[in-house]
Amino acid sequence: MRKLKDLKITVVGLGMEGGSYAIALRHYINPKNLWGIDIDDNTLIAAEKLGVIDKGFTNPIEPLKNSDLVIMCIYPSGIINFIKENNNYFKQNCVITDVAGVKERLVNDINSFLRDDIDYIAGHPMAGNEYKGFLYASKDIFVGANYLITPSKKNKEENLKLVEEIAYKIGCSNVMRIDHITHDKMIAYASQLIHVIATSIVNNEHFSDDINLFSGGSFKNATRVANINSDLWTDAFIENKKYLIEELEKFENNISLVKDSLINGNREILYNFLQESYVKRNNNRKIFQN
Amino acid sequence: MRKLKDLKITVVGLGMEGGSYAIALRHYINPKNLWGIDIDDNTLIAAEKLGVIDKGFTNPIEPLKNSDLVIMCIYPSGIINFIKENNNYFKQNCVITDVAGVKERLVNDINSFLRDDIDYIAGHPMAGNEYKGFLYASKDIFVGANYLITPSKKNKEENLKLVEEIAYKIGCSNVMRIDHITHDKMIAYASQLIHVIATSIVNNEHFSDDINLFSGGSFKNATRVANINSDLWTDAFIENKKYLIEELEKFENNISLVKDSLINGNREILYNFLQESYVKRNNNRKIFQN
Repeated sequence: MRKLKDLKITVVGLGMEGGSYAIALRHYINPKNLWGIDIDDNTLIAAEKLGVIDKGFTNPIEPLKNSDLVIMCIYPSGIINFIKENNNYFKQNCVITDVAGVKERLVNDINSFLRDDIDYIAGHPMAGNEYKGFLYASKDIFVGANYLITPSKKNKEENLKLVEEIAYKIGCSNVMRIDHITHDKMIAYASQLIHVIATSIVNNEHFSDDINLFSGGSFKNATRVANINSDLWTDAFIENKKYLIEELEKFENNISLVKDSLINGNREILYNFLQESYVKRNNNRKIFQN
Repeated sequence: MRKLKDLKITVVGLGMEGGSYAIALRHYINPKNLWGIDIDDNTLIAAEKLGVIDKGFTNPIEPLKNSDLVIMCIYPSGIINFIKENNNYFKQNCVITDVAGVKERLVNDINSFLRDDIDYIAGHPMAGNEYKGFLYASKDIFVGANYLITPSKKNKEENLKLVEEIAYKIGCSNVMRIDHITHDKMIAYASQLIHVIATSIVNNEHFSDDINLFSGGSFKNATRVANINSDLWTDAFIENKKYLIEELEKFENNISLVKDSLINGNREILYNFLQESYVKRNNNRKIFQN
């Protein structure tokens, strides 16, 4: 297995997530070479000056030709395009990984055209903050986080282990392999649905700074993530629309059930619905520890 | 103005909220008499033994005949029935207040039959926890909380001031008068809608203890209140159904907009919706301080 310190690594996209990845690699691993690719010159200059990367590039050819590991930290649809366009430039036997929040389409698309000698290890660190850009990058976003890996049949075990080792090294506490369909379904439910809900609460004429007068904290908790990165989440929702639409429909059915029970004055249906939630929530308390 | 220490007070309903009110009155004011009315003997015995109340009653007549202030801490529909049934037993010129989370129907109904000498001051302390019963009562639930008062034309200023003084004494940091229609609309949006959403997320086959693997914390935050008191909230939703149905419909329209933009692949509509939320959320940051 390759030693992490001997690797030549390129991070593609030095936004909040890619910038954080690069800072964490520098801090916890300090690989032989650490390069950055970005469309924004100023970001590359800043990252170089801060010593986060050895050198920044807007043209990807040179760093890709020399990198053992390429970490894709751009939006999901951009990842596919970037790898397709640069398919011929990657170093022989290199490993590509990514941080995208949706996996099924990426795994299928990328593996359909990727050179046979390259191994694409699909990854998803559940880490970040609600801000955009390199200025909000921090090595600490990975500390204690989950890092999900969705292997495909093409993946070599040593390359899966390589990405897993890096995930632990940069601070993740729980690195787990999961199939990409389960991943995307659960992300649609546990993360994307929650973001659609938060924005759907906020887009209301009653939303104002006075809202805490009328809430014991539940409103604040439900809408914190409405401070959304619209570019990223538009892309992620569309990439995962098959499963997100399913979750939105199940959720809509529940909201309708409550609304209809109120319209029809059916106290029993309403009570049973709330009680079902009470029981489920109490049977799954681990979620709410910490 | 009456001195708080000289008051004879009865708390009706020694559940979590009423029990907490009684404990806080004992601790912060220690009135001349503090009585409790409840349908459950064991609760009354426990409250007596702990010194929270001087005496407990299942038959309300005696304490009502002697109380300057009666604090109604039962479910909204029960409050109207209780006051109607005991209209003749209340002490001359007494003050009744309550803690119900909905106000319009209570204010209108109660004032339509209440004896002219009695002043009903509608109140709503935004305090509590998600548990039921006297065992979960605590004097601390009011500390730092908001206490909303919805005055009616019949109310005497001195009686409004009396309830406000008590609210501050038991620890509330912000006591505010507001009209009952605005109150109920805002409660429908900022509190009841959030509880319908939380239960509608939880009532899903994907809900399990593993969910935190797929969420950075937003799921936990959005579903904490799904641990709902089904009796209380069924009652509160039905009492406020006019405004809650309005809020559910506005919310449903937003969810549909997102779903349709995914089905139709309309990236611009989706982006604009998320961006509207982003801007609103950032223009109202006070909500998220503390």
